[in-house]
Amino acid sequence: MTKKLITACIGAGNIGRAWAMMFARAGHEVRLFDQNADAPPAALALMRGLLADQKALGLFDDEVEAVLARIKVAPSLEAAVKNADYVQECVYEDLELKRRVFQALDRAAPEGAILASSVSSIPVSQFMENLAGSRRCIGAHPINPPHLLPVTELIMSPSTAPATYERAAAFLTSVGQVPVRINKEIFGFALNRLQFAIVNEALHLIEQGYISATDVDNIMKFGLGRRWAIMGLFEAGHLNANGGLRDYYTKFGETIRSLMQELVLTPNPLGPALVDEIAGELEKTTPIDQVVARQAWRDRQLAALMTHFESMKTKVG
Amino acid sequence: MTKKLITACIGAGNIGRAWAMMFARAGHEVRLFDQNADAPPAALALMRGLLADQKALGLFDDEVEAVLARIKVAPSLEAAVKNADYVQECVYEDLELKRRVFQALDRAAPEGAILASSVSSIPVSQFMENLAGSRRCIGAHPINPPHLLPVTELIMSPSTAPATYERAAAFLTSVGQVPVRINKEIFGFALNRLQFAIVNEALHLIEQGYISATDVDNIMKFGLGRRWAIMGLFEAGHLNANGGLRDYYTKFGETIRSLMQELVLTPNPLGPALVDEIAGELEKTTPIDQVVARQAWRDRQLAALMTHFESMKTKVG
Repeated sequence: MTKKLITACIGAGNIGRAWAMMFARAGHEVRLFDQNADAPPAALALMRGLLADQKALGLFDDEVEAVLARIKVAPSLEAAVKNADYVQECVYEDLELKRRVFQALDRAAPEGAILASSVSSIPVSQFMENLAGSRRCIGAHPINPPHLLPVTELIMSPSTAPATYERAAAFLTSVGQVPVRINKEIFGFALNRLQFAIVNEALHLIEQGYISATDVDNIMKFGLGRRWAIMGLFEAGHLNANGGLRDYYTKFGETIRSLMQELVLTPNPLGPALVDEIAGELEKTTPIDQVVARQAWRDRQLAALMTHFESMKTKVG
Repeated sequence: MTKKLITACIGAGNIGRAWAMMFARAGHEVRLFDQNADAPPAALALMRGLLADQKALGLFDDEVEAVLARIKVAPSLEAAVKNADYVQECVYEDLELKRRVFQALDRAAPEGAILASSVSSIPVSQFMENLAGSRRCIGAHPINPPHLLPVTELIMSPSTAPATYERAAAFLTSVGQVPVRINKEIFGFALNRLQFAIVNEALHLIEQGYISATDVDNIMKFGLGRRWAIMGLFEAGHLNANGGLRDYYTKFGETIRSLMQELVLTPNPLGPALVDEIAGELEKTTPIDQVVARQAWRDRQLAALMTHFESMKTKVG
């Protein structure tokens, strides 16, 4: 069993709530702080409903109230991080704000605490450098919704200590996340670069009339998404030839190289006519007034998929 | 209920077998022809085992022998396509071969038959143009393994009639495939262009030391692959803001445009050192002598995922 830790979530918005629920579900103590004193009680009320939904979907076994009882509202940032082992910053994506919060965290948190940022695109060194404790600071970028898509990018700043990565990765694993290591800073980290590389090509194909947005989504839903949900990009190739990836690249390398040469490797301007075309297609199936209901559908689907893959581990390895 | 059709599969390799099983599972009659007369009996023996696996995984209800009984070995191409409603060509990806086969099919098949090619990269007009019946010819590109990843790209050649698309799409739907329409010829069609746009960026990130191949695969397995398996690329954005895709692109459009500008939009040469690095990582988990066993694992995982999504339709819409 993993040791139960003292954790803090700084910011009680969407992302702060998601982390708090994950930490508490795994048995860790959570201190929740927000500079707006009304936010944590509101977050607790929301979390009661969200946790009930998650429990109904089989995502955890404890009683909802037992999980909620592990989340305590902290009256100040300093109180939140007192004796903390792991601190997750979840404030807005604003450089000056993150600078201020990290300065305060580095002053207030005990020496052994990890300071992790839910950063989504700002290079982490811009708010982690020049801190006395920059060695224990690290980026920890989740994917939305974080408690249903269990991967977190751990981003090394130039001063992050290797041990900080190891401890953060072990902690995130204990709460059900799969940590991936981004060794050096780069805009968009890896997840969003991968995501927008494919979106960029899709936008080109739609704009030039080769395919509709609906059919791009069908290719992902019934083809590439399923393939990658099971194998990722490279294991898919490794299993596409009996001699593994070397065999695959020997057989198909020339075709793949030609294809990569042919891709339209220019950024799509994402102009208003194209947005209008794609949004128009989507709104036929999900009009704007049904987006929130469809988000609930998404969350049920993602939870069920998580449960499905968990059960497959014992069934087929 | 869909009308039961007379179908022919020309070529009894991997892809021919996959189509034959799908057509027969759906109740259609299949004539299987291969210019190598030993191939169809060998294919039938293989299919008996594959169908038993698929039945064990819950992919169809009929008895295996009842499905097999619908697949008949044809002594000639002409016999295979006699009275056929739908013909699926599954020969090697070789332009001259496909030209010869399509000329023979166009001469022998009844006027009303659809002639579909399991083409994977050759522009379809190169073997469909100049045929008397070019209007009833269409590309039908599956994704491997075709009976477990249910999407088919239907590629319009300049002379393909709209009615040919409609009939081919209806037939493929009847066998459990989701047809997507590629309106004009383009190298790689859509599926492989999307696939290699993301692979190209992943290769760059690995080569430059930002991330390991294993962690790229983890991002796909636990993050982007799951997201896209449920929503595709664009519905994911539509549900990421309460006002739908327009709202999402209004809020995040500038960041997305900057990110697309920053992507390394140059083709990766996929050199030997990089292949060696990535293959070496994969072989730690799945050594070459375990690739075939892991392919069986992949197929069980894909079949279970298909069953899972089928059951979710009735559960959550």
